[in-house]
Amino acid sequence: MARYEYGAGLWLFGQFVDRYASDAYGPPVSTLEAIDRAAEVGRLSVLDINYPFTDPAISVADVKARLDAHGMRAAAITPHIYTRTFQLGSFTNPSPAVRQEAIDLCKRAAEVAAEIGASYSKFWPGQDGHDYPLQVDHARLWHDEVEGMRQVVSAFPEVQFAIEYKLKEPRAHMLMSTAAITLLAIQDVGTDNLGIVMDFGHSLFAKEAPAAALQLVHSRGKLVSVELNDNRLEWDDDLTVGSVHPVETIEFLIAVRRIGWDKPLLLDQFPFRENPVDAARQSIETLDAMERLIDRLDLDALAAAQSRHDALAGQRMVLDQMLGLDRS
Amino acid sequence: MARYEYGAGLWLFGQFVDRYASDAYGPPVSTLEAIDRAAEVGRLSVLDINYPFTDPAISVADVKARLDAHGMRAAAITPHIYTRTFQLGSFTNPSPAVRQEAIDLCKRAAEVAAEIGASYSKFWPGQDGHDYPLQVDHARLWHDEVEGMRQVVSAFPEVQFAIEYKLKEPRAHMLMSTAAITLLAIQDVGTDNLGIVMDFGHSLFAKEAPAAALQLVHSRGKLVSVELNDNRLEWDDDLTVGSVHPVETIEFLIAVRRIGWDKPLLLDQFPFRENPVDAARQSIETLDAMERLIDRLDLDALAAAQSRHDALAGQRMVLDQMLGLDRS
Amino acid sequence: MARYEYGAGLWLFGQFVDRYASDAYGPPVSTLEAIDRAAEVGRLSVLDINYPFTDPAISVADVKARLDAHGMRAAAITPHIYTRTFQLGSFTNPSPAVRQEAIDLCKRAAEVAAEIGASYSKFWPGQDGHDYPLQVDHARLWHDEVEGMRQVVSAFPEVQFAIEYKLKEPRAHMLMSTAAITLLAIQDVGTDNLGIVMDFGHSLFAKEAPAAALQLVHSRGKLVSVELNDNRLEWDDDLTVGSVHPVETIEFLIAVRRIGWDKPLLLDQFPFRENPVDAARQSIETLDAMERLIDRLDLDALAAAQSRHDALAGQRMVLDQMLGLDRS
Amino acid sequence: MARYEYGAGLWLFGQFVDRYASDAYGPPVSTLEAIDRAAEVGRLSVLDINYPFTDPAISVADVKARLDAHGMRAAAITPHIYTRTFQLGSFTNPSPAVRQEAIDLCKRAAEVAAEIGASYSKFWPGQDGHDYPLQVDHARLWHDEVEGMRQVVSAFPEVQFAIEYKLKEPRAHMLMSTAAITLLAIQDVGTDNLGIVMDFGHSLFAKEAPAAALQLVHSRGKLVSVELNDNRLEWDDDLTVGSVHPVETIEFLIAVRRIGWDKPLLLDQFPFRENPVDAARQSIETLDAMERLIDRLDLDALAAAQSRHDALAGQRMVLDQMLGLDRS
Repeated sequence: MARYEYGAGLWLFGQFVDRYASDAYGPPVSTLEAIDRAAEVGRLSVLDINYPFTDPAISVADVKARLDAHGMRAAAITPHIYTRTFQLGSFTNPSPAVRQEAIDLCKRAAEVAAEIGASYSKFWPGQDGHDYPLQVDHARLWHDEVEGMRQVVSAFPEVQFAIEYKLKEPRAHMLMSTAAITLLAIQDVGTDNLGIVMDFGHSLFAKEAPAAALQLVHSRGKLVSVELNDNRLEWDDDLTVGSVHPVETIEFLIAVRRIGWDKPLLLDQFPFRENPVDAARQSIETLDAMERLIDRLDLDALAAAQSRHDALAGQRMVLDQMLGLDRS
Repeated sequence: MARYEYGAGLWLFGQFVDRYASDAYGPPVSTLEAIDRAAEVGRLSVLDINYPFTDPAISVADVKARLDAHGMRAAAITPHIYTRTFQLGSFTNPSPAVRQEAIDLCKRAAEVAAEIGASYSKFWPGQDGHDYPLQVDHARLWHDEVEGMRQVVSAFPEVQFAIEYKLKEPRAHMLMSTAAITLLAIQDVGTDNLGIVMDFGHSLFAKEAPAAALQLVHSRGKLVSVELNDNRLEWDDDLTVGSVHPVETIEFLIAVRRIGWDKPLLLDQFPFRENPVDAARQSIETLDAMERLIDRLDLDALAAAQSRHDALAGQRMVLDQMLGLDRS
Repeated sequence: MARYEYGAGLWLFGQFVDRYASDAYGPPVSTLEAIDRAAEVGRLSVLDINYPFTDPAISVADVKARLDAHGMRAAAITPHIYTRTFQLGSFTNPSPAVRQEAIDLCKRAAEVAAEIGASYSKFWPGQDGHDYPLQVDHARLWHDEVEGMRQVVSAFPEVQFAIEYKLKEPRAHMLMSTAAITLLAIQDVGTDNLGIVMDFGHSLFAKEAPAAALQLVHSRGKLVSVELNDNRLEWDDDLTVGSVHPVETIEFLIAVRRIGWDKPLLLDQFPFRENPVDAARQSIETLDAMERLIDRLDLDALAAAQSRHDALAGQRMVLDQMLGLDRS
Repeated sequence: MARYEYGAGLWLFGQFVDRYASDAYGPPVSTLEAIDRAAEVGRLSVLDINYPFTDPAISVADVKARLDAHGMRAAAITPHIYTRTFQLGSFTNPSPAVRQEAIDLCKRAAEVAAEIGASYSKFWPGQDGHDYPLQVDHARLWHDEVEGMRQVVSAFPEVQFAIEYKLKEPRAHMLMSTAAITLLAIQDVGTDNLGIVMDFGHSLFAKEAPAAALQLVHSRGKLVSVELNDNRLEWDDDLTVGSVHPVETIEFLIAVRRIGWDKPLLLDQFPFRENPVDAARQSIETLDAMERLIDRLDLDALAAAQSRHDALAGQRMVLDQMLGLDRS
């Protein structure tokens, strides 16, 4: 039996566009169709669902019903605060009216989260930041970011909120860029119901050691959710789990286990050119196999090696499981 | 009087999308409307125009007429070989039928280039490459890339073709990634009518020194066009000229002058959140001002400093012009 | 008259080695000789001095006398907690004895700082971190880092201490990597006499916007010192000021001015192949010239542009001063 | 029985310094002592040996005798053209006298290579490049690089020479930076006895796909040697094999096998803080284990997946061997 339940961002099963394939990598997919595709994976228990849904005619009840039909539930509701309206920022938009619009949308998403029984409501303020030197007043940006989030989270003391940080894209600099800076923002917001969604790939390309960042967030009691994927360290490539950094992924999973994590692990992938159901399945099978590998590891011996900072010993234990090193 | 004519990629004036603002950063813009916007800049003589046009109802004659009406002309025709159909590659697509489709589209673009009087027909094989380790047979990819381009360029010996290289995006690895590898591909194609579009920003984030790459391409007689923009070294941010790397831009413009370049300089920008007409104007004014600065430089003294590899002297000359260093 | 006093890390005038030129880039330079060289610059008022000095025969009084003779003073004392003994870490070394050695050396450096009248005693825990995945227990590392610093700073409540963060080198991952994570560590240490040395280049290659990081540190009352240099975003190249990022440097200096900074600006450069006196002078002249440029800027207009997030306007103001854009 | 003989750069067993631990990471190690250490690994057949040796009293005959005593032989002789004398360049030094010194040293190294029976004489022109924008005349640099190498290689038509390219370090930009640009330089040199040492890690951090670069070099008949290690994509970290990129390493080894490579694989590591004998052994055991893994792969099925550009299938085959994915 698998150690964790699995989940996914619903976008994994949606339509992908980028600035070149402006006719999209495939046809449109509605929120309900995406849920159906997610169900096809066969191993997903929870979903992180964007709001508003793809079609105004789809109601929260429709979504809930479709989840129920597949025996799934909502992990999170993530409001679309990074679309055209918010291109210069959501909580940090120069226009007070747009800032209010972002706050209102996030409040509405929190209501939907409560209504649909999601574990948390997510902030991904992807447009809050800047592109050019000299473009913004950094103190003002920080103030507006904190103030905007405070207005939302203080209005729903019963709802858990979480920020997903990322270094950049779509802005050249995102404000909520690293685990540490996000912890500082959470301190400034000053409520108890705001934490962090720790995305392995975002951590990697923010030049963090993801296992260290996870530990840091956990030590402050702010870990709300965990997402997995992979990339090539310079961009949020959102590749399948373990495709580039299997060793760091295993180190991360060991850290997840050490803190006693018992909630789902979510996938955050963008399989532009792959079958999304297959891509999700492969990531889950990889995670299952990594967990079995960790089961076989002598974690005390690993801890002992780590207490000596013995790079070769720790690495050897894992490579020995992965590759069967010759001990003769 | 300005030293160079200026031009731009017509996409600068079009509609921008990315994977987050899937409702686009602004409304749709037709090819003809984009030409009108380009004309508003007031300094653009030539345009690099994507083909097919935004609407099948727009004919080549329509485009030509609109250019004529504004006193502009086509620098290049760039076929859309990176849309949905070509998501796994254009010349290197695993499907022979799609490879043929790419070749046919490029041939049609070459005809359009000839018809419209463009200086060259451009290849930007943005989907030719790979994302994951183990995904492709690299020898096969190289073969197909060379063979596909050969079929196009050998069919139009009178037309000038040019490859625009880029390190990555939309693929995690693009095949035509650097100046040098593109020169090797051109050798393998083996015709005389294929060269390189040297994009300053692509060169920067391929970790080249753009002035050195320009010199390398020129020394092989393969420089067909020059594009300008800026970025933060890890991604093709397509920012305005000089916004991040004014010193490298000036070094590049000196290199352009040294080789006796007398064709236009083109802008390749993506002003997602800016007024494109203003963004283009500002880049052109920056280029004009940089040319005036270079006029004031003692280029012989700079060459003398460079013959000594004297980092401080060369830098001082430029900073002195930019900032007025105190020589007292 | 210049707005700021200037200073430098004394290493700028010392002997440079790297792993290739193992015979060093020049002959050995003693602490006293380096001070003499620094004096040659003619504009340096303060120095950040490594301890132990290059020769055990050199006393604190000798160093103080030499500074006095040149009319200079100590900005900081920086203990060498990154030499052979500390290769596996200083405060985070796996060996309790070596951790104690680091603490003792830092305490001794604090005494020297007090004795010599330095403004602060600096921690640069360059070996505290890791190189390989799985090498260390990240929670333990954090604990030891905080505990080691606490032992030092709590023993000298009258002395100001400051951490200089850096992303990496000599470790592949340094623990004190960004402004934000360092602020969290300072919170955990829990004393009032520990702050941050903000190095512009370290901030750049940690992928921060340096002006934003400065503002963040200042807003928490933790800014102790400011260092300047430049690099190419992937490494701590320690180039001369403004050589690569003049616009970001100007933005940073505007931020320094906005917070009312009235202490010295220090240079942190490694002129491996340049005359260090010339390299320091050129950086200072560049800084002077940038300050004059900022004097000429309409900072209210810039603030107004920033309140609109108007990338083109702010950039135009600076480029106009640097290049004289054509407004006709 | 292992598929390949193994070798190593002798520096792996020498003394490491960097700019911080200026007292070095350990005591000095002579050329002969380093050979003894290399022999301790028990699996190294060949060594890449720096010239001049660490002590002028050590003769070529001494080195040969020590190799013989351990049943090892010289893979290569690598002249030290990156020490203090050559800090502004070896073949591209602004001083004709220093350029000549570099040429003379390389000629002497070629004689030593012949005398000692090495398979090739290596150029690693680590100081040929630049640090600052505007510092050098790029055309001149290229000319001098090609001319200097030509003078050496044309004087020894019987000796095989090879260039090891690297993107940067110790220069911010190295001239021989990528596989492709090095192939162009080799064309310009114009002799038959000059090829390439393909270093997996150098290829990775030059943003190449190492398997693709290997194929490119091989297709031109210029592959002389293969070196292995690992890094974190932004720097030449010279970590143990497979510690960060096991999947890319396996892809690379498959490419090595596909071209029918039958010469040794060499290690290029800098185990600053590790026991070098253990670090070398672990890399070799990892390579052995990866070869056994490749033996178990269905390479035809992999080729079939690659012919479809099927990212998931190829990845699955390897992860299945590494992790035992659940196929149920």
